[in-house]
Amino acid sequence: MAKKQKKAPNKRKNKSKRKRKSPLRIIPLGGLGEVGKNMMLFEYGKDGFIIDAGLMFPEEEMLGVDLVLPDFSYVKKNISKYKAIIITHGHEDHIGCLPFLLREITLPIYGTKLTLGLIEGKLEEYGLCHIDFREIKSDSVLKIGPFKIEFMRVCHSIPDGVGLAIHTPIGLVVHSGDFKLDQSPVDNIPTDYQKFASLGKMKPMLLMSDSTNSELPGYTFPERNVGKNLSVIFRKAKKRIIVASFASHIHRIQQVFDVAKENNRKVVISGRSMVTNVQIAVSLGYLNIPDKILLDIDEIKKYKSDRIVILCTGSQGEPLSALARMASHDHSKIELKPKDTVIISAAPIPGNEKSVNRIIDKLYQAGVDVYYESISGVHVSGHAAQEEIKLMLNIVSPKFYMPIHGEYRHLKHNAIIANSLGFNEKNIILAKNGDVIEFFPNKFRINRKVETGVIFVDGLGVGDIGDIVLRDRQLLSKDGIFIIVITINTQNGQLVSGPDIISRGFVYIRKSAELIDAAKERVVKVLEKTAKEEITDWSVLKADVKDTVSDFLYKKTKRRPMILTIIIEI
Amino acid sequence: MAKKQKKAPNKRKNKSKRKRKSPLRIIPLGGLGEVGKNMMLFEYGKDGFIIDAGLMFPEEEMLGVDLVLPDFSYVKKNISKYKAIIITHGHEDHIGCLPFLLREITLPIYGTKLTLGLIEGKLEEYGLCHIDFREIKSDSVLKIGPFKIEFMRVCHSIPDGVGLAIHTPIGLVVHSGDFKLDQSPVDNIPTDYQKFASLGKMKPMLLMSDSTNSELPGYTFPERNVGKNLSVIFRKAKKRIIVASFASHIHRIQQVFDVAKENNRKVVISGRSMVTNVQIAVSLGYLNIPDKILLDIDEIKKYKSDRIVILCTGSQGEPLSALARMASHDHSKIELKPKDTVIISAAPIPGNEKSVNRIIDKLYQAGVDVYYESISGVHVSGHAAQEEIKLMLNIVSPKFYMPIHGEYRHLKHNAIIANSLGFNEKNIILAKNGDVIEFFPNKFRINRKVETGVIFVDGLGVGDIGDIVLRDRQLLSKDGIFIIVITINTQNGQLVSGPDIISRGFVYIRKSAELIDAAKERVVKVLEKTAKEEITDWSVLKADVKDTVSDFLYKKTKRRPMILTIIIEI
Repeated sequence: MAKKQKKAPNKRKNKSKRKRKSPLRIIPLGGLGEVGKNMMLFEYGKDGFIIDAGLMFPEEEMLGVDLVLPDFSYVKKNISKYKAIIITHGHEDHIGCLPFLLREITLPIYGTKLTLGLIEGKLEEYGLCHIDFREIKSDSVLKIGPFKIEFMRVCHSIPDGVGLAIHTPIGLVVHSGDFKLDQSPVDNIPTDYQKFASLGKMKPMLLMSDSTNSELPGYTFPERNVGKNLSVIFRKAKKRIIVASFASHIHRIQQVFDVAKENNRKVVISGRSMVTNVQIAVSLGYLNIPDKILLDIDEIKKYKSDRIVILCTGSQGEPLSALARMASHDHSKIELKPKDTVIISAAPIPGNEKSVNRIIDKLYQAGVDVYYESISGVHVSGHAAQEEIKLMLNIVSPKFYMPIHGEYRHLKHNAIIANSLGFNEKNIILAKNGDVIEFFPNKFRINRKVETGVIFVDGLGVGDIGDIVLRDRQLLSKDGIFIIVITINTQNGQLVSGPDIISRGFVYIRKSAELIDAAKERVVKVLEKTAKEEITDWSVLKADVKDTVSDFLYKKTKRRPMILTIIIEI
Repeated sequence: MAKKQKKAPNKRKNKSKRKRKSPLRIIPLGGLGEVGKNMMLFEYGKDGFIIDAGLMFPEEEMLGVDLVLPDFSYVKKNISKYKAIIITHGHEDHIGCLPFLLREITLPIYGTKLTLGLIEGKLEEYGLCHIDFREIKSDSVLKIGPFKIEFMRVCHSIPDGVGLAIHTPIGLVVHSGDFKLDQSPVDNIPTDYQKFASLGKMKPMLLMSDSTNSELPGYTFPERNVGKNLSVIFRKAKKRIIVASFASHIHRIQQVFDVAKENNRKVVISGRSMVTNVQIAVSLGYLNIPDKILLDIDEIKKYKSDRIVILCTGSQGEPLSALARMASHDHSKIELKPKDTVIISAAPIPGNEKSVNRIIDKLYQAGVDVYYESISGVHVSGHAAQEEIKLMLNIVSPKFYMPIHGEYRHLKHNAIIANSLGFNEKNIILAKNGDVIEFFPNKFRINRKVETGVIFVDGLGVGDIGDIVLRDRQLLSKDGIFIIVITINTQNGQLVSGPDIISRGFVYIRKSAELIDAAKERVVKVLEKTAKEEITDWSVLKADVKDTVSDFLYKKTKRRPMILTIIIEI
């Protein structure tokens, strides 16, 4: 009976089903409103897949944090839906979350050859083997439930990057990946304009496009410019040449090898990630190392200084990197000498400017000739500037436009660019991480969010520290800690010993005996008062001591150390 | 007898005196190898004076530090020598140390009218009155012992800046101050080329010249360019306009008032330092405020939004500034609305990029139109770029050249510039803070250093924290603190209570009971062992506990919190 009664509503359901298709859902979990931890979900009905799983490096106030991941708890909860992780390219902000994600879920990973090679190397470091890797080629067509996905080569600061054409029941979605429109790329594989153009003819519903450089007018310079400038510098150099760059920037590395060969110099590779990536790129055919050019670091002394190039890590001023050690005269194998040439072939990632500048200062102090981005063309960006962003938009000519990959102002400038081309503001989607963007034929809406946020990695801990721990670290970092130890006889509430005071990071203790003694007196007074009032609730006592001492120290020093009151009961 | 015996050496001394003039000594105490805390000493025989006494803002790793001062202990020790402090202009990196210096020494302060006005305001805040201020004018000649000092107007990002011509027994020294060669300055007072040129004719021994922008090719744009760009933005703006800038940039402020008047807008001033400096500049005649243009912040609601300009502080992203509060919807009087225009008319000082970017992001999220340096010409620098540095060098044509005011790479690039003009490398002085540069006729030498370094200001404490406290703060900031409290019976060395463990900033305690318990077990084992071995030296016990727990925690978490072992004896 019950079943029969339900028929009517069922009919209505069927009717509405015919009228309304279920929506395509796009859910960015990271990469919107930030540079880093890119991760995006596509869902249609019971099917879905993931694009990218990146990490971000911690902001200044995330004290002691090593890495920042997108919160992927929504993925874990809905794991039955997802059939694949598709990676657009091998940069950390697109692959760095994989070791943590794949500890908790199992999914095949799709990527181009180099991308998979870099991921494999990374996962092995984390002890993750037996991963289901599936290589995609430029003509691959991937079917996931109702989705059909094609790939377009894009130029970027790493080879083998792709954009995606995602055919869905609601419409065609084009995802640019991270791209630039380099007209003379080092590997002679330009961005696949024809394929993007043919997608453009299919009236795509949506283009999602890289916003990183949307503040920059004009075009990003081609990568080959760097090679030309390196060539000039190499010809001038009289002694050893040290080039620091990103270990994943295979085209840059190729150019260093090429220019070294031109100048009859051998190349030594220093820095773990540089060594690893060069090996991977060579073995997969992405790097073409001239014969007999590679030199072991221990052979360096056999050659005159004008025959040597050292290719190393440390372009971001990382304190333990090969370059930082050289600059501090702390490298076990390489000693910098006056008139050596150091080329920092990279731009500082925002936040790293100061550490990079410090290294440059040290290098100059060592008498070295230094070349870096702001004074010479030894780096170009891998991201599209404004005119390239416009060109991509004109080629694809979608109905809706969604700026991705960037801090909010980058997304906003990308939107302003679209607007300047006559794109209707209503069709530009300025979304936030966690937004569920639902697409119906000819319209979209955002009216709910999924759980989103960050997972902090600190040492071995993944997600075991959060706002409370960070707030404590911030407090500790500012004015240190002030610990008051009181031993109390539980029988009569009398002070047995102490108060003892220990502080760290607050004042220089040996010079502050007077202050410490005065603080002790304040504590004793509080104890006398509470004893008189026969207070035996230690939490009240603790709070009293804390407030009194905090006020006293602030009055005396205008500092607010963290105050801990420890009561030992006897 | 003894006295007589000494005569011979005395004679020799006199002889050598006739042959050798005593040297001119120049001692930079700050500003070389850094941007900030400029301070320089001039000495000849028993006479001397000080140029500038600035502060620096703390570097990232100087946790909790508010201000950084040059270590002026050498000045205190030799105070009888110094007759004056001469200030080149009113920026913090040239005057900010004065409140701290003048608490400890008494000297007259020489400066131009505006410079003294700003210093006076500052000193009053610190409760320092009755200071001996002596105004210098462009034709002033100041005599200090054997020194004769003249002043040359220079353009900079604050009015009333000067360079110095210091006539000494050894030769003429020209000090550029901080300068740019603006050909159309807002106050129509260009850098005094004639005076610099007439000094050049006198064959100066030394030019000391501003290096801040020595990495930048070409010329720095004139300040009036900003006015033109502001004018364009003002004309376009439909709602309220908020301009954030440096409170000391009087010419910028003048231009904001002028453009506001052109556009029939009233001006509200928000932010304490902006209010103070505008008052000082108006009262001294450096700022010309159009009639009836000023509006009290409480009257803001009486006017339509297209009649309002708000001039405020916060261009560096300072979290408590007027602009930061507006961006966070936390300003008591001003609520930002969509389509308002915010102009950040300043460049972020290195290290402030991230906080400024965060504010820009928040402003865009509030729907505001934002203009900032990197996307529109709403700021120009106050320092000479390469071609201006060359021009100054060509006009003054000294024998020796000493780059000042900048990090090492800025000094180095300034030296490279001089070298590119044919200046002999041997005549370029790349000095460091604390170097005693001794000048003799036609030569110089650096063969000793005076005590130098930094004084940290933290709250009320000046110089009471140093490397140990900072190292503790860094340690605490990274992995927090782990405190172990053990109560021991002194009679038998037995554990009376505990071990108790308290941690902050290490792990989220509620989720880490297992880890904490395991750590306790480790402590108990150490105590059992030491009790068995009858160790009664608590320092040995403490070290044992600390090492054991530290190793254990590192193995489990790869973190190294600060570990404190507190032993209570009963």
